[in-house]
Amino acid sequence: MNRSISIGKTAILLTTLSEQELKLLSPTLDNVKFCIGQVGSMNMQKVISAVETAARRNELIHSGLYRETHALYHAIMEGMEGVTRGHLAIGDMSRTVGLRFAVVRGKPFTNEGEGEWIAVAFYGTIGAPIKGSEHETVGLGINHI
Amino acid sequence: MNRSISIGKTAILLTTLSEQELKLLSPTLDNVKFCIGQVGSMNMQKVISAVETAARRNELIHSGLYRETHALYHAIMEGMEGVTRGHLAIGDMSRTVGLRFAVVRGKPFTNEGEGEWIAVAFYGTIGAPIKGSEHETVGLGINHI
Amino acid sequence: MNRSISIGKTAILLTTLSEQELKLLSPTLDNVKFCIGQVGSMNMQKVISAVETAARRNELIHSGLYRETHALYHAIMEGMEGVTRGHLAIGDMSRTVGLRFAVVRGKPFTNEGEGEWIAVAFYGTIGAPIKGSEHETVGLGINHI
Amino acid sequence: MNRSISIGKTAILLTTLSEQELKLLSPTLDNVKFCIGQVGSMNMQKVISAVETAARRNELIHSGLYRETHALYHAIMEGMEGVTRGHLAIGDMSRTVGLRFAVVRGKPFTNEGEGEWIAVAFYGTIGAPIKGSEHETVGLGINHI
Amino acid sequence: MNRSISIGKTAILLTTLSEQELKLLSPTLDNVKFCIGQVGSMNMQKVISAVETAARRNELIHSGLYRETHALYHAIMEGMEGVTRGHLAIGDMSRTVGLRFAVVRGKPFTNEGEGEWIAVAFYGTIGAPIKGSEHETVGLGINHI
Amino acid sequence: MNRSISIGKTAILLTTLSEQELKLLSPTLDNVKFCIGQVGSMNMQKVISAVETAARRNELIHSGLYRETHALYHAIMEGMEGVTRGHLAIGDMSRTVGLRFAVVRGKPFTNEGEGEWIAVAFYGTIGAPIKGSEHETVGLGINHI
Repeated sequence: MNRSISIGKTAILLTTLSEQELKLLSPTLDNVKFCIGQVGSMNMQKVISAVETAARRNELIHSGLYRETHALYHAIMEGMEGVTRGHLAIGDMSRTVGLRFAVVRGKPFTNEGEGEWIAVAFYGTIGAPIKGSEHETVGLGINHI
Repeated sequence: MNRSISIGKTAILLTTLSEQELKLLSPTLDNVKFCIGQVGSMNMQKVISAVETAARRNELIHSGLYRETHALYHAIMEGMEGVTRGHLAIGDMSRTVGLRFAVVRGKPFTNEGEGEWIAVAFYGTIGAPIKGSEHETVGLGINHI
Repeated sequence: MNRSISIGKTAILLTTLSEQELKLLSPTLDNVKFCIGQVGSMNMQKVISAVETAARRNELIHSGLYRETHALYHAIMEGMEGVTRGHLAIGDMSRTVGLRFAVVRGKPFTNEGEGEWIAVAFYGTIGAPIKGSEHETVGLGINHI
Repeated sequence: MNRSISIGKTAILLTTLSEQELKLLSPTLDNVKFCIGQVGSMNMQKVISAVETAARRNELIHSGLYRETHALYHAIMEGMEGVTRGHLAIGDMSRTVGLRFAVVRGKPFTNEGEGEWIAVAFYGTIGAPIKGSEHETVGLGINHI
Repeated sequence: MNRSISIGKTAILLTTLSEQELKLLSPTLDNVKFCIGQVGSMNMQKVISAVETAARRNELIHSGLYRETHALYHAIMEGMEGVTRGHLAIGDMSRTVGLRFAVVRGKPFTNEGEGEWIAVAFYGTIGAPIKGSEHETVGLGINHI
Repeated sequence: MNRSISIGKTAILLTTLSEQELKLLSPTLDNVKFCIGQVGSMNMQKVISAVETAARRNELIHSGLYRETHALYHAIMEGMEGVTRGHLAIGDMSRTVGLRFAVVRGKPFTNEGEGEWIAVAFYGTIGAPIKGSEHETVGLGINHI
C-alpha cells in the first residue's frame, strides 16, 4: 500500500496505550497533528461535542471552515458506529460510555496529491449505568479533509 | 473497574502491532487463549468463516457447542460493525476489506462468577477494489461465553 | 382499543401452534382470510417470494394491483426485521432460516372506515448453516391494504 | 432439531394468550423459570428497565453478575428490534408502545453442555400517541446465559 | 410505466422550486391535492408533527381514520430516511434541519383500481447548529393510502 | 445562508426535469461541472459503478486520486440511502431500481476557503421486478471534495 503514515493505527494506539506503553513504542508523531481527550456520558451530543471542542482548541481543524467541521463530524460518527456497534445511540438504549479519544491529522499517502486526512479513534467501556457492568469498546473513523 | 485483564485491548494490539512492536510491549498473554489470522475479501461470509475456522482450529471455542459458536458469531458481527461503519456489507457496497484479526478468550473480571468472555478485533483496510484506494478500519466485538 | 379482531395475534398463533394446539384454542378465523406456508433458505429473496406466492395463490392479495403487492411487501419486510433482528440479511451474514409463515387479511377495527389490514407473521429458527446450531425467531409485520 | 423446550414459543404464548387461553393450552412451564409484565411508554429506557426489573425481582437473572445482565440486555434489544421494525426508537419517532412481555429461562437443547438460554418476548401495540391509532407488534430475543 | 401523474416529482418540485420557478414550469396540480410547509428543528418529533398537522389542516388525510395517519406516517419516515441518510436522528446526532416540505395526494396510476397514493417530499439543509455549517438535503416517501 | 450555488438543487432538477422543462427553468450551470446518466438494476454495485464511471469519464473527479473517489463514493451511498429508504439493498430485498442520476461539482459557499463540494442526485422508480409495480424514489448525497 502507498501509505507512509498509518494515522488510524496512531489514533488507536493513542487511545489504548498507557503513557508508559507509548514511551516503549514511541510511535512516530512528528509528521502528524494530534490531540487526545476523555469523555464519559449517556449523551451522544456530549461525546460529539467533546471531540469537536478538543479538535478545535488544538487547532486540528480550522474552526471557521465548514468543510473541516464536516470532515471531522463524519469521522466522529463513523468512530461511534464502532463504539455503539449497530445503533448510534447511548442513553436511549440505557447504556453509558466512558471513552478516551484521539484525533490525528496527517498525510497517510505518499502521493502528495492525496493531501490531508483525519482519523478519530475511541477506546473505553460501554455498558449499563452501573459500575462494573460494562465491557471494552473501540471505534475508528477516517475521512479526507 | 473490576477488570483484571483487558481482553479487548489485547485483541486490538494483536491486530495493530507488528511482531517487533509486540515484543517491546510484551502484553500479558499468560492468562488468555488467543489466535490471530488474516483475511481479504469482498464477501462477508468469507470474513466470518475465516475467524470461526481460526477460533475452532486453535480451540478457542468448543466446536460441538452451539452456545460457544453463538457467542463468537455475535462478537464477530459486532466487530464487523466497526469495520463497516453503518452497513454490514462489503462487496454489495462495492468495497473490499484486507483485515488482520485476533480472537482472545479469558476472564476480564476479578469476580470469578463473571466467567469467560471472548473478544474479536479487526484491523486493516477498507476501500474500493483498486490498490491504494482504501483507508484503515478497526472493529471490536465482545461477548460473554 | 377499538380492535375487534387481532389479525397479528391470529397470524402469530397460526405460525407458532401445532395443529393440535390450534384445535384446542380454535381461534376465530371466520372473519379473516388467511394462508400458511413454510420456507427454509439463506436467501432473503426466496423468503419474500414464498410469502408473496402463497398470498397470491390463496387470493389474499389481488395479483393485478400494485397497491396490494406494495402493502404485502412492506408487511413482509417488517416481519423479517423481527426475524433478523437488526440487519435485513440472511446468507450474507452466514446464517440460514427455517420459517413457518402466516398471512392474515381482515378488518381489525370496529370502525368500518378503517377497512382491511394485512398481517404477516414468521416463526421458526435462525442460525448457522449447521443442524442444531440455531435458535428460535419471530417476526410480525402489519399494514393497511 | 435437538431442542426439547421451545423457550421462544413459550415466551410468545405467555405474551399473546389470555389466562383462559393459556389454561386450554397449558404449555409445559415445569422446566423453565419465567415472569411476565407490562409496560406502556414512549421511552425505550423505561421498556428496558421494566423488563430488567421484572427479571431481577423474579430471580430470572443473578443481579450481581454482569454476564447475566449482559445476556438479558441483548435479548431485550433483539426483541425490541421486532417491536420497532427497523429503528430502535419509540418517542423519537413520535410513536408509543403498550406491551406485555415475558422472560423465560431454561435449557432449550437436549445436550446438557448447551446450558441455559434466555428468551424475551413482547406483544402489544405500537402507534401514534392517540387512542386507537395503533396496530399490533411482536418481538423475540434469545441469548445464551 | 402506467403512471399518469408523478406525485413524487410534483412533491419534489414544490419543495425545491421558488414561486417564480414554479410559475415557469406550472406543473399540473389539477388532479392532486397538496400542501406545503416549513419546519426547522433538532427534534424529529417536531418535523413529523409539522407535516401531520399541515396534512390534516389541508384535509389531505382524514383525521379520524388511523389507516390514513398510518399511510402518511410511513411516507414521512421514508422521506426522513433520505434527509438523514442512514440514521433517523437529528438532535441526538448534534445536527439540525431546516426543511421545506410538500404533501401530495393523488392517483399516480392510470389503472383506477390502484387508487390514491401519498407523497411526502423534503428539501432544505442539514448540519451543525451553527449558521452556514450545513448542506442541502432531500427526501421522498411514497405510500398507498 | 452563505451558499451562492445550490449544487444539491441543481442535481435534483437535472434528474427530475425533462429537457424541455430544464430549458424553461434554465438553471445556472455556468459555475459547476456536471454530468447525467441512467442505470437500471437490482444490483447496488452496478448503480455505484454507473455513477463512478460517468463521473470519471466527464472528469468530475480526478481518477488518480483516492481522496476524490472517496468523496464521490460517500456521496453516492448517501444518495442511495434516500433511494432505498432504510436498507441499502436492492436485489437482496427483491426490488429493482430504474434511476436517472446527476453528479454536480462546484463551490456552493461564497467563502472561497470552503472550496469544492460534490452532489449526487438520483430520481426514478423502485419496486418489484414487474413492470408497473414500482413507485418514484429520490436521493441526494453531498460531500466536500
